Amino acid sequence: MTEGGLSNPMNPNKQIVLKNHVTGYLKESDFEMRNSFISFEIPHGSKAVLVKNLYLACDPYMRHLLSSPDSEFASLLTPLPTGSVLIGYGVAKVIKSGDPTFNKGDYVWGKVGWEEYTLIHDAQLHMLFKIKYPNVPLSYYGGVLAMPGIAAYFGFHKICAPKEGEIVYVSSAAGGVGQLVGQFAKLMGCYVVGSVSTQEKVDILKSKLGFDDVFNYKDEPSLSATLKRHFPNGIDIYFDNVGGEMLDEVLLHMNLHGRIAVSGMISQYNLSKPDGIHNLFTLITKRIRMQGFVELDFKNEMYPEYLEWAVQNLSEHKLIYLEDIVEGLENAPSALVGIFYGRNIGKQLVCLARE
Amino acid sequence: MTEGGLSNPMNPNKQIVLKNHVTGYLKESDFEMRNSFISFEIPHGSKAVLVKNLYLACDPYMRHLLSSPDSEFASLLTPLPTGSVLIGYGVAKVIKSGDPTFNKGDYVWGKVGWEEYTLIHDAQLHMLFKIKYPNVPLSYYGGVLAMPGIAAYFGFHKICAPKEGEIVYVSSAAGGVGQLVGQFAKLMGCYVVGSVSTQEKVDILKSKLGFDDVFNYKDEPSLSATLKRHFPNGIDIYFDNVGGEMLDEVLLHMNLHGRIAVSGMISQYNLSKPDGIHNLFTLITKRIRMQGFVELDFKNEMYPEYLEWAVQNLSEHKLIYLEDIVEGLENAPSALVGIFYGRNIGKQLVCLARE
Repeated sequence: MTEGGLSNPMNPNKQIVLKNHVTGYLKESDFEMRNSFISFEIPHGSKAVLVKNLYLACDPYMRHLLSSPDSEFASLLTPLPTGSVLIGYGVAKVIKSGDPTFNKGDYVWGKVGWEEYTLIHDAQLHMLFKIKYPNVPLSYYGGVLAMPGIAAYFGFHKICAPKEGEIVYVSSAAGGVGQLVGQFAKLMGCYVVGSVSTQEKVDILKSKLGFDDVFNYKDEPSLSATLKRHFPNGIDIYFDNVGGEMLDEVLLHMNLHGRIAVSGMISQYNLSKPDGIHNLFTLITKRIRMQGFVELDFKNEMYPEYLEWAVQNLSEHKLIYLEDIVEGLENAPSALVGIFYGRNIGKQLVCLARE
Repeated sequence: MTEGGLSNPMNPNKQIVLKNHVTGYLKESDFEMRNSFISFEIPHGSKAVLVKNLYLACDPYMRHLLSSPDSEFASLLTPLPTGSVLIGYGVAKVIKSGDPTFNKGDYVWGKVGWEEYTLIHDAQLHMLFKIKYPNVPLSYYGGVLAMPGIAAYFGFHKICAPKEGEIVYVSSAAGGVGQLVGQFAKLMGCYVVGSVSTQEKVDILKSKLGFDDVFNYKDEPSLSATLKRHFPNGIDIYFDNVGGEMLDEVLLHMNLHGRIAVSGMISQYNLSKPDGIHNLFTLITKRIRMQGFVELDFKNEMYPEYLEWAVQNLSEHKLIYLEDIVEGLENAPSALVGIFYGRNIGKQLVCLARE
């Protein structure tokens, strides 16, 4: 009777659990901390991997996992049942492994529970990657060297097809993806403008990340006037992380043969009905290509190429990654809530343990 | 003093003139017939071409030329001043030419006035093409062998990148563009469904043009249920001629890696504010590419290739083109108004003269 783990010594395992399905803006009270227990044994004959979680990533798409199954977005991503442990990308260390691909002591990144330890039954399903370069900050595998990095790199290069000298606009430009898109665009010789939600972010992006121009959209009474001022020659490439009203206005400022990479729509995820976009007619008049993608489209084939490139550039300080790391699982819910209010500067992570 | 043509004999030239800028749905009373005069002399030293107009094409984009300069769409296409002669694509015969490219008796297609005779000052600006095969019906140069044909052919092949066996949906499927997209898709081995506005059109598209399935959207109380019924396996390619509510609903029925060619949005052109599109988030979850285009993007380079292909296929009856031809310039305004109500079956043209 070891299969159910009942006879194994059980270890405490704090977890963040979804208390209720979320409508409207996410709140800390939608979650609760549960004191649970976990066996440190791998079920006999299974290929499960037991990991200790080090960093959890707070990603905007996670909002969809929390909606009621009858909500607008639920048809697109399957929501978690209430009472479940939250699931997201994270960085972890292997404690024990039934899967020959992974060994005790390996660092990995992939989908883990929001808990201290996760027993991963199927490493492939959880997209578990063994970390090849553990000498960069491990937290990078929750950001620049993981999903946000892949999304930014291939989203920008493959979907936007940038050319030197083009005018690039990236929204949510201090976020985990946006900050990278801006830097990738600069490395390509583009002119890059970002939008953010605080003056502090404006300053950092200009001074540290080399953006040509950055504006705080919350300070701007008219999006139309703002875009006119910052893009007197129009926009060739819009890397959209926010959707909604901004996307609608950007459509009117796009140049002929412009490209819009639809990476995220964070402004929409807490709305019960998404905003209406009225200006799609410009897709015709300006011959715009608008294309959605997720990092999974590129990950398996192209991640190794990106990883080498990024590690090299990070080590040479040609690429910088801003992180906003809070300590402790108990602070994970407020960190996740915070990204929908733009409270983070850089990639929001939760550190559970350093080792 | 022949420059101004004052000393030349003047000839009567009936014209359709824009009486007032249009708000909301186009009405016949927005136009008036003017009895004008035209000199049959080419101004000395000019490269102008005098043509006799044979067929005028009624195209949805023309609606934008008629709006007030302060309307929503006006920023996209420059409206005509009130009192101007309407301009559109047409088929004509050269009466006199100062341009060595064109000779008396040549048949041409391009941008002409809605009038009996047009003095074209700049053939290139008016996109005047000499008709190479005058032995097919000349009216075809207002449709299948002109702008709508080019839009359908390259919009479908280049923008939609179809593969054999894919599921194609085309709206406004009995129109000048839609009927061709459906046939091109069948020639590619796709499964093709069209939507139209009357039962008569349903029958014709199924029986004559080989559509696999056609529905009358006006008979359907729920677009969602309709699309579910006609596309149990989803939509790979949507060739959009209508925009608005239909586009919004189609987004929810698209398959992974689907493509949407944004060719037109006829449902929106008479609205003072375009409908809001709420379901763009599916661009991400389904990795959809949505791309606008106009036939001009392909015309100069690729028209000769298309022309040969189309003339061949028309002559072998592998391609059929439905036309709805009214007689007489005086009926042109009602014909143009009619296309926004779906009154036409096939390409709407106005015949002014056969020769």
